[in-house]
Amino acid sequence: MEFSSKLLERAVNEMAQLPGIGKRTALRLVLHLLKQPKEQTELLTSALLKMREEIKFCKECHNISDVDVCEICANPSRDQSVICVVEDIRDVMALENTGIFKGLYHVLGGKISPIDGVGPSQLNIHSLVDKVKSGSVKEVIFALSSTMEGDTTNFYIYKQIKDCEVTTSAIARGIAIGDELEYADEVTLGRSLMHRIPFESSLKNM
Amino acid sequence: MEFSSKLLERAVNEMAQLPGIGKRTALRLVLHLLKQPKEQTELLTSALLKMREEIKFCKECHNISDVDVCEICANPSRDQSVICVVEDIRDVMALENTGIFKGLYHVLGGKISPIDGVGPSQLNIHSLVDKVKSGSVKEVIFALSSTMEGDTTNFYIYKQIKDCEVTTSAIARGIAIGDELEYADEVTLGRSLMHRIPFESSLKNM
Ligand SMILES: [Zn+2]
Ligand SMILES: [Zn+2]
Repeated sequence: MEFSSKLLERAVNEMAQLPGIGKRTALRLVLHLLKQPKEQTELLTSALLKMREEIKFCKECHNISDVDVCEICANPSRDQSVICVVEDIRDVMALENTGIFKGLYHVLGGKISPIDGVGPSQLNIHSLVDKVKSGSVKEVIFALSSTMEGDTTNFYIYKQIKDCEVTTSAIARGIAIGDELEYADEVTLGRSLMHRIPFESSLKNM
Repeated sequence: MEFSSKLLERAVNEMAQLPGIGKRTALRLVLHLLKQPKEQTELLTSALLKMREEIKFCKECHNISDVDVCEICANPSRDQSVICVVEDIRDVMALENTGIFKGLYHVLGGKISPIDGVGPSQLNIHSLVDKVKSGSVKEVIFALSSTMEGDTTNFYIYKQIKDCEVTTSAIARGIAIGDELEYADEVTLGRSLMHRIPFESSLKNM
């Protein structure tokens, strides 16, 4: 792709760094910004910069938050003794949409995937195990996607907490194997939470 | 979509203003930026801002340029008497890729489309007509996409220059009717330039 302008080329190349955005799409997006009033570019870039610089992660559950402890963790009406383990903040959003879960979350920030160079130490696993060992947790619900990496991650955590006084469960697999949690519809997702099974039983399908 | 952070929500909403980017995709892109080093967001936003603020349009052909007169218009080896009229700078890039055209371009910046509220006065038509009337142009090649709006725009310009001493032609329609110029392969596009026909003949297909 030959550009008539270095400024344009640089903008397209940076835009094309985003996942799933090829050069052609990047060019279309950048030309769109050129046609819109300058304010739209200013709003977009300042929102991205401000977010990247100021965003916080809840020190309890690692969910994205504007304050030190997120709204969910700080809500006294939520059951502090039930923790739902998820991969990503998008999963928190999907589960909150069901309106069914009244416990707390723990956001791992990914799943163990040696192929992508992601080991347990890069995920928020240590703080979860500590919390369980402190004795305040009655149940841990595993709600990772049912992929090989998800199962590996579940099992890695399970091994470290299985001797604690805690019930472990996995959400019911009404969701097709291999599907991402965030794309499930709310009814399926809500039901799979209600029908969660003891974690040991979920291993039989491995 | 319920967000746990106003900073995140604002970033997603601004990103979702871009054409073809829904909220879900915007969230995925924004979370990607959060996982990358801060520098990536800084590079992206500064490239977009700098482009939007400093980019120029060639005062001869309205192509995007970093200088007042673009490289093509300033190139003495190009034939100044042949002008290829295109909708968009992406069409200039596509035609330049063929390596066949050695004249100059004129970028209209869109096509006449009453439904989208785009009239002739919003496009760079006046400067084209002026240039043709000045007498330095021998041929005008219409290379808009072969849609109703493209045909309307061609004809609108044609009416204003048909009494001048100028040959008008339209690129050969080897390209399927309704297809966007920029997605054509280089061979088809190059051939359609070589086999251009008198503009009057192209009207028979309307
Ligand atoms: Zn929290
Ligand atoms: Zn130019």
